[in-house]
Amino acid sequence: MTRLEAGTRRDQLVTVGAELARRIPFDQIGADAVAQAAGVSRALVFHYFPTTRDLQVAILRSAAVDLVARIDLDPTASPADRLLLGIDGFVATIEEYPASYLALARSGGSDPVLLGVFEEIRAAVISLITDAVGIGELPPGIRLAVRGWIALVEECVLHWLEDRSVPRDQLIAYLQCAAIALLPPAISMAEGSLRPKTLIPGLIRIGTT
Amino acid sequence: MTRLEAGTRRDQLVTVGAELARRIPFDQIGADAVAQAAGVSRALVFHYFPTTRDLQVAILRSAAVDLVARIDLDPTASPADRLLLGIDGFVATIEEYPASYLALARSGGSDPVLLGVFEEIRAAVISLITDAVGIGELPPGIRLAVRGWIALVEECVLHWLEDRSVPRDQLIAYLQCAAIALLPPAISMAEGSLRPKTLIPGLIRIGTT
Repeated sequence: MTRLEAGTRRDQLVTVGAELARRIPFDQIGADAVAQAAGVSRALVFHYFPTTRDLQVAILRSAAVDLVARIDLDPTASPADRLLLGIDGFVATIEEYPASYLALARSGGSDPVLLGVFEEIRAAVISLITDAVGIGELPPGIRLAVRGWIALVEECVLHWLEDRSVPRDQLIAYLQCAAIALLPPAISMAEGSLRPKTLIPGLIRIGTT
Repeated sequence: MTRLEAGTRRDQLVTVGAELARRIPFDQIGADAVAQAAGVSRALVFHYFPTTRDLQVAILRSAAVDLVARIDLDPTASPADRLLLGIDGFVATIEEYPASYLALARSGGSDPVLLGVFEEIRAAVISLITDAVGIGELPPGIRLAVRGWIALVEECVLHWLEDRSVPRDQLIAYLQCAAIALLPPAISMAEGSLRPKTLIPGLIRIGTT
């Protein structure tokens, strides 16, 4: 162990913790594991993170910052490519932290702090979209639709991680095509002019695949 | 209080509890409230439900059975109408139990029993769809897409309950049109032939609404 500035030392412990979160669900990571992996004393970990929960939330926030950074790698790409790249970055990050993502998805709803981290990620996705569209704020109907699409993405990725029932490139393409397919009805809903459909084209094909 | 058969008495207490769950989050309902509303002793409630949790889970299951019954009211309707009616029944039931639904959505992920109730509802939606399509089991890619759509529905309804930012008929129409719009890319994903889109039509319109 070498002497480090307080901020640097704290960052180092979080980085070590985030590394552990790739293999261990974040809510099972304790000061012991971080101290051992960082080669420091348990007391030092407790100095920066008075409770195990402080440590876990810091690890989660660090992973969330990593995730958000990876969903908008090329702001100069076309909106369709930016969307595709963003989804790819999202899935890639989740693939690196599968156990922790699963743990977060399971307990995130009931815990205000974890919900806050999730909301930070969702807010980043929404601002990426408003930025791509070039407007300051999404109309309420579009915002509702975007929230729905984000939930669809989270759920599909969670289930896909379980059994990888379709090839990765097909999942990514589906999540992008889903966003684009949902746009026309979302715009109509926001305008108040949407009518239900009376026919479902392609229904027969499902039974024959 | 009149003498009732054991099964009938238990059902009555659950019915009374489900009635309370329309106003009070289900996880805040206790034996006292049910006993008072049913005009029976607290001891009698505990006789049928040894713990508060047994009572709450029974109330939730009862509401779930109610919900499932209301998402397929007319199996003779066309698939598109059946979908629309099903979504309407879903939203109508949630509108009757807003506080309990919110409590379930928040804590459902982390609690295996609550997750089980949620999964029963989702399984009912999936079997309604396989039934409408006329096949025994959905191909994995379609199943993944259906799970994603269910998450989209749950999320949109939750957010809509907060501020009702669009008219109710527009929300219902959107959730139906979303399912139909997602079908072609879902079928292509299941077949492994989906390609990402390169253009996002209608993007400019968002900024102008």
